[in-house]
Amino acid sequence: MTKTNYDNAVIEQGNLKYEGKAKQVYLTNQPDILWIHYLDQATALNGKVKETIIGKGEINSKISHLLFTYLEKHGVAQHYLKTVSQTDELVQALQMIPIEVVSRNFAAGHFVSHFAVPNQMPLHPVVQEFYYKSDALDDPFINDSQILALGFASPDELAVLRQQAQIINDLLGQLFEQVGIRLVDFKLEFGRNTAGTIILADELSPDNMRLIDQQTGHSLDKDVFRQHTGDVTVGYREVLRRLEQVI
Amino acid sequence: MTKTNYDNAVIEQGNLKYEGKAKQVYLTNQPDILWIHYLDQATALNGKVKETIIGKGEINSKISHLLFTYLEKHGVAQHYLKTVSQTDELVQALQMIPIEVVSRNFAAGHFVSHFAVPNQMPLHPVVQEFYYKSDALDDPFINDSQILALGFASPDELAVLRQQAQIINDLLGQLFEQVGIRLVDFKLEFGRNTAGTIILADELSPDNMRLIDQQTGHSLDKDVFRQHTGDVTVGYREVLRRLEQVI
Repeated sequence: MTKTNYDNAVIEQGNLKYEGKAKQVYLTNQPDILWIHYLDQATALNGKVKETIIGKGEINSKISHLLFTYLEKHGVAQHYLKTVSQTDELVQALQMIPIEVVSRNFAAGHFVSHFAVPNQMPLHPVVQEFYYKSDALDDPFINDSQILALGFASPDELAVLRQQAQIINDLLGQLFEQVGIRLVDFKLEFGRNTAGTIILADELSPDNMRLIDQQTGHSLDKDVFRQHTGDVTVGYREVLRRLEQVI
Repeated sequence: MTKTNYDNAVIEQGNLKYEGKAKQVYLTNQPDILWIHYLDQATALNGKVKETIIGKGEINSKISHLLFTYLEKHGVAQHYLKTVSQTDELVQALQMIPIEVVSRNFAAGHFVSHFAVPNQMPLHPVVQEFYYKSDALDDPFINDSQILALGFASPDELAVLRQQAQIINDLLGQLFEQVGIRLVDFKLEFGRNTAGTIILADELSPDNMRLIDQQTGHSLDKDVFRQHTGDVTVGYREVLRRLEQVI
């Protein structure tokens, strides 16, 4: 499908604007709308390991849609507009802020090795980390004053990123708790709309979160792929199944 | 010399408490006083490269003494008490905060490679960075929320570290400007005294600063050693000579 209707207009899929690790972003005939296509693909080590995983694009599109819908219902400004097909959706075109915002409720992954702390150690307060999005520089960890000196965001924008990440962490944490899942950590990206408002963008899926089944202790996220411990879609499908019961 | 007088008491040098990259710290017969001995030694790459440099200990002791005296005169609480010999001094014993505070007025070194920016690019606002002091973990870069979650300092203490680093940067910047030297960046360490007050500690020397002669553009700091571009003590002696004219 390369056309759809939205807001009484025909939206046509245009040229590829950007290809990410697990999705493609296309322009459309409307300057303020982008067309996202989720790929059946997983990567690890910042893209150095890549694999095709049948069905993953569809599951991620559905999970992302559910989570964006839930956050919007709770007052979070976000970019999702419409589902076009099982793997495709329309989103608002934004001027992306080149910063990944990571929230950590429990120690895992890089944080564990970096600071030699036990895996799943609770973190109080919640740890927030910024990374500068740059493939060439390997997405370096960055702090507030570096972001300001390098002009990647304004002080007001940084405050909004922090605050939004905290609100979203609280909302997602409660949601996953309801369905017996621990939200360990996750990554967000934001953009500015034409009015300058900061809007949650990118995707919200187990590709960008660590989720643990509270009953079994099993990973339901991309760690299954990173650590070669099984079929990643089994966990993703379980996350989707549980979310569909409550959203 | 292993004894000296201070505050109407005889201070005796005791056991080695800690050996750093370019100095030794000894206990004394007074629990609130330490005895520092500056070594004729330079290291690079976090201690992986080490070399003996005759006279460096004495020069660093003198520069450190001058800078601490200058800062104290301008209201900064600091640990220096008394010069014992050309390489030895007494300082207050503090409970050290395991955080290095780096201030950057211009891009240099690691910052340049990390963010692919031009060497000596002016940084506005001044960049402040925290590093967790841990040889085992290679002194990792750390942000505020990580420090709080790992319990390395309290929110109030972090605020004091930031504020003190900024005041000290302003004072040192003005001082070096007076003698034709650009203060590019520098590292500070702090400790708590028994009353809980945060006090500037460690040393203040060209081992922990990047200093550039504004006339010639030459490095007057440890970069000369790191980059093998000459006798490091020539620059250190020049820094001492100029500081002695104004302090």
